[in-house]
Amino acid sequence: MERRVLDIGKAVLEKNQGLANLLRQDFAEKGVYVVNVVSSPGSGKTELLTRVLDRIASQLRTGVFVGDLATDRDAARLEGHGAEVLQINTDGYCHLEANMIREAWHSFAEKKLELLIIENVGNLVCPGTHDLGEDLRVVLLSTTEGEDKPLKYPSIFKTAHLAVVTKLDLAEPVGWDQAAALQNIRDVAPGTPIYLTSARTGDGISPLCDELLSKALSKSGEVARR
Amino acid sequence: MERRVLDIGKAVLEKNQGLANLLRQDFAEKGVYVVNVVSSPGSGKTELLTRVLDRIASQLRTGVFVGDLATDRDAARLEGHGAEVLQINTDGYCHLEANMIREAWHSFAEKKLELLIIENVGNLVCPGTHDLGEDLRVVLLSTTEGEDKPLKYPSIFKTAHLAVVTKLDLAEPVGWDQAAALQNIRDVAPGTPIYLTSARTGDGISPLCDELLSKALSKSGEVARR
Repeated sequence: MERRVLDIGKAVLEKNQGLANLLRQDFAEKGVYVVNVVSSPGSGKTELLTRVLDRIASQLRTGVFVGDLATDRDAARLEGHGAEVLQINTDGYCHLEANMIREAWHSFAEKKLELLIIENVGNLVCPGTHDLGEDLRVVLLSTTEGEDKPLKYPSIFKTAHLAVVTKLDLAEPVGWDQAAALQNIRDVAPGTPIYLTSARTGDGISPLCDELLSKALSKSGEVARR
Repeated sequence: MERRVLDIGKAVLEKNQGLANLLRQDFAEKGVYVVNVVSSPGSGKTELLTRVLDRIASQLRTGVFVGDLATDRDAARLEGHGAEVLQINTDGYCHLEANMIREAWHSFAEKKLELLIIENVGNLVCPGTHDLGEDLRVVLLSTTEGEDKPLKYPSIFKTAHLAVVTKLDLAEPVGWDQAAALQNIRDVAPGTPIYLTSARTGDGISPLCDELLSKALSKSGEVARR
């Protein structure tokens, strides 16, 4: 019984990987740069994205898929910041899967996006195992969660290409030990670039946006040069 | 393929439910009251439990199982507070399952506990679907996560018997809207008692401990009267 369950789990992941590979190929052909944002619930994904969109969406045609178990609250918060926004309700699923992105992507086919940001379901475990065809996986760690999360949830930090510390404005009241937190990220994911941000004050948003812009423009440029 | 996966998922949940029922029977025979604590990563489960143990463990023989993907940091933090503590590493699983509790429970067989507290893996989705044979499921909502989490993760709030707001000391710096948060919990889980706490200041810890003590003593009393 145990073995059978594990094999099915593997089959599900392989099916997801196959779909993610097809998505990645399609994204490459169209020159759209895709970012998958993962974190705990309440780490500030949506708030950070509103600030990022305010800087980026006027320079690149940007779309956002927002994954949640229920409600369209995050989509509502993201509207009015210059991007096309679509809420994906997972109906109990703890993460987004490639087939959900494929379906959502069909509905965005005519929008000729240059940048697609996927805000995953708030969860530090499950989204780590499901490739969505993204170019860049970004993991957030908020100062309010505590410095030990990279050690306790290592897989999602290991699979991320870039880490963003959020809610820096709350560092003092929560007693945030920044040296320890950065060391924990580095211990689990050596070499992963780390950006320090506060969506509330705007600190650190510019360097993060510059990095995303540069990567996205480089990808659309590659397609244009073909 | 989709159907087969769903059926297997159902079989896994049914197997878990069968084991949870056996555990519940065993807990009842031994008169041990069992509490399953669930929340996001970093909501303050471990910190709250250290305060609860400081008040309760001298009055009831108490054990704690701590679930995490990796590390024994939470077990280390809980030691020295009067309870027997065992770390369960789930090796990638996003939640604790009844078979993990059964195995851990075997190793606690000789301890004659009156109260067993299970600190689940930090995750607002997956632990909601897995019964562990507990008497009481407690869900935490920290002020730093935001007031909307009950609406966005309704299933785990619906299955909880008791809700605890944590990190009240941070309410002001994070701009916590308490009326909205309590309303959101009530909208999703009407009638669920809500306790307001700060592990840092100690506010609200006593009423919560009194409630746990009263429930646990009532259960062990039932066994004694047989």
